[in-house]
Amino acid sequence: MSKEEAQLPNTVEQFIELNQTTMMEEFFTFLRYPSVSADPQFNTSLNNCAKWLAEGLKKLSFEVQIWPTSGCRPVVFASNLNAGPDKPTLLIYNHYDVQPAENGKQWNSPPFEPQIRQGSVYARGAQDNKGQCFYVLQALQFLQERDGKLPVNIKLCIDGEEEIGSPGLSALLTEKQQDLQADYLAVVDLGIQGPDQPAITLGIRGIVTMDVEVTGSLGDLHSGSQGGIVYNPIHALVELLAGLRDNSGKIAIQGFYDDVVELTPEERSMLSFNFDTESYQNTIGAPPAGGEKHFSPLERAWLRPTLEINGITGGYAGPGFKTVIPAKASAKISCRTVAYQDPEKIGKLIENYLHTHIHPSMQLTVHVHSGKGKAARATPSSRIVQACAKAYSEVYHCPCEYIFEGASIPIVTELAEASGGEIVLLGLGLPTDQIHAPNEHFSVDRLHKGIMIIARMLELLCRA
Amino acid sequence: MSKEEAQLPNTVEQFIELNQTTMMEEFFTFLRYPSVSADPQFNTSLNNCAKWLAEGLKKLSFEVQIWPTSGCRPVVFASNLNAGPDKPTLLIYNHYDVQPAENGKQWNSPPFEPQIRQGSVYARGAQDNKGQCFYVLQALQFLQERDGKLPVNIKLCIDGEEEIGSPGLSALLTEKQQDLQADYLAVVDLGIQGPDQPAITLGIRGIVTMDVEVTGSLGDLHSGSQGGIVYNPIHALVELLAGLRDNSGKIAIQGFYDDVVELTPEERSMLSFNFDTESYQNTIGAPPAGGEKHFSPLERAWLRPTLEINGITGGYAGPGFKTVIPAKASAKISCRTVAYQDPEKIGKLIENYLHTHIHPSMQLTVHVHSGKGKAARATPSSRIVQACAKAYSEVYHCPCEYIFEGASIPIVTELAEASGGEIVLLGLGLPTDQIHAPNEHFSVDRLHKGIMIIARMLELLCRA
Repeated sequence: MSKEEAQLPNTVEQFIELNQTTMMEEFFTFLRYPSVSADPQFNTSLNNCAKWLAEGLKKLSFEVQIWPTSGCRPVVFASNLNAGPDKPTLLIYNHYDVQPAENGKQWNSPPFEPQIRQGSVYARGAQDNKGQCFYVLQALQFLQERDGKLPVNIKLCIDGEEEIGSPGLSALLTEKQQDLQADYLAVVDLGIQGPDQPAITLGIRGIVTMDVEVTGSLGDLHSGSQGGIVYNPIHALVELLAGLRDNSGKIAIQGFYDDVVELTPEERSMLSFNFDTESYQNTIGAPPAGGEKHFSPLERAWLRPTLEINGITGGYAGPGFKTVIPAKASAKISCRTVAYQDPEKIGKLIENYLHTHIHPSMQLTVHVHSGKGKAARATPSSRIVQACAKAYSEVYHCPCEYIFEGASIPIVTELAEASGGEIVLLGLGLPTDQIHAPNEHFSVDRLHKGIMIIARMLELLCRA
Repeated sequence: MSKEEAQLPNTVEQFIELNQTTMMEEFFTFLRYPSVSADPQFNTSLNNCAKWLAEGLKKLSFEVQIWPTSGCRPVVFASNLNAGPDKPTLLIYNHYDVQPAENGKQWNSPPFEPQIRQGSVYARGAQDNKGQCFYVLQALQFLQERDGKLPVNIKLCIDGEEEIGSPGLSALLTEKQQDLQADYLAVVDLGIQGPDQPAITLGIRGIVTMDVEVTGSLGDLHSGSQGGIVYNPIHALVELLAGLRDNSGKIAIQGFYDDVVELTPEERSMLSFNFDTESYQNTIGAPPAGGEKHFSPLERAWLRPTLEINGITGGYAGPGFKTVIPAKASAKISCRTVAYQDPEKIGKLIENYLHTHIHPSMQLTVHVHSGKGKAARATPSSRIVQACAKAYSEVYHCPCEYIFEGASIPIVTELAEASGGEIVLLGLGLPTDQIHAPNEHFSVDRLHKGIMIIARMLELLCRA
């Protein structure tokens, strides 16, 4: 065998083995960009990361466009239509932005200096979503290198604002509708339930987020001289927030559940709601004691809407003590919505509730953010879902199950409508990957499986 | 008139005029020490400030002792007993530590770089309590310079931990009881109600403070995938805290009010509870809508106990949004107690309440701080109260009124017991001085009046 022959991979396994060093180097470069979309100070990093992606895609015979957004966190759009008009077109959605990575002390290695420990890559974005984006790109590279072209027409939409609700991409959908046209839409930002159990996600929840600020006095006050005279904004805030749920865990806002549509018995029969409480408690460190009491844990996470306070701050929380009545206190709230709730309507319901229930001596501002996204549902019998399920089964050597996901990818429903494509939701995340938390990680094994699954799925989609 | 004669002041007014430049230089030096007792990083500054005070007192013929404390924020104790055994001994209490001064953006000039604007000195501690300590020292300097000795025996106790509840001084009281013996105790850390209305304070509230932390999971969680499964510590905390008060503003903890003793009709007749709601609202920016509904604002601030949340934190509160269910959420709570509640008992009642009412899936820690202080009450007919009231009347040319103060000086009751002295509570603070808040300030006019009042009070005490 000549050296040249040895370097041309016939199988995806060969490709992975031959490329493993450069592959990890490239992955680490991707992870080193602190592409935090929540904080504008990182916008330069986001732009540099987008350029880096664009350069890589050009080498894979993609035509690349960088779509600027008003938030200065561009969308990377790329297309390779060399498979020809008789082949289907698949739009693949990923994102290169990441969640913030404060709480530096809780990270065992710096969030933007990737490290491999015990077979996993540790970094912010290692899984969500740079890891899952990266195995898609590697699968495309494998097919392009082996065959000189891709089996189906591919469009890539790599978002820079997923973690803040994709406002920029959302605003571009009408203008870019022609570019985005596709037969199928694969959203590669999901997960599986256990390391040996492949799964396709049939639905994700929607989201709406808001900032709430309560203001009392003009400035901070001394809690000795003013305590008992003036109303404390922290008390007003905690009293307001405590009323948002009743004792049964139900969200106590009139009309909140009005548009929730339950699954049909047929849809429910495809799912297993088995839940290992002991294993959950061991992993998470807390019992599954949240949400509505009359539903099981997975029903609550998959099929029921939520309201969560994601942040609260007011007064002095540093070392020691400060006897202050602060001028302000504030909180961040998000709701996960399910089909077919309208996140915009939910946002308004909460805003109205808060204004109605705030202590009358307080000033309240509620800012409902743009970047709301509706819950999405896939059709299990579709060609794209079936191709994915078969690819998973082949790689994992076992049947693929169907699940739901409680998290949201706000742009999905809008993007599906703009592209006209049938949707599939897939990925290789695990609940233990610590996404959105310190010490996020993704195993090298799953990175490799991801390459295999995507490559195989594209071949199956071409033949179907 | 020779130069030497011109420099010997006969009256306090002359003293102030002759010394005004050096006086302000010294005051500014005092204010420049960032002597924040709440945060150990400032301990060196506290020690330097104590040394600076000690040097100044030695020049005024005081014997000075620096009493180390376990917190490394020493007490400056000084005595000048040259008046002789036939004269009474007065112990004066001040403190040189200050509140934290974070919220840098809200300060119009840096908190530890004093500035005079519109006749007031702006700095952290300008009033509380460096300003009020400084006019005491200047009055002593005037009398010492003019007469070569002080009219009564003076002991000074200048605390370095008042703002954190004086744990160090409290621990020293038994050991130092002999040093502290005095006929009278003057606590110069109080205020007046308006710039032209002198007042003596007949009572202050006590205090107990605590830290509360609620822990759910081992680490932060994604509010999409885990929302609805796990209980959110921020919700557990706000629900817990919201229950601490009922709709009437009463603190909903059984036994909380058990030991509150109302004023006698005679004591009440000395006080005016008149309250200018409009003026309050204009100054503070919020209506007097806090506390128990069935009491007037000044009754609530002077004679009723409180429970206030002074700080709360949990989750992500930075720019943008982070969809997190945090592992922890925490709050700081303080209570102002009145005679004759025991702050230690109140702390335990709250701790028990919190442990009883926390959501069962959460871990709760409550840390009740040392440095609790009981409420104090003065006797209006005592020699020291009468000398002070007369001095105020003379300097202000109007009758002195009697008030209460809602704030606390935790050490006062203990110190009165240790010294055996009859207590008086006085000072020249105004409600508008922004103590414990950004832009704390103290007018130069009141600094001068303070020198006059203290000097006059010591003369009256000598003659009485």
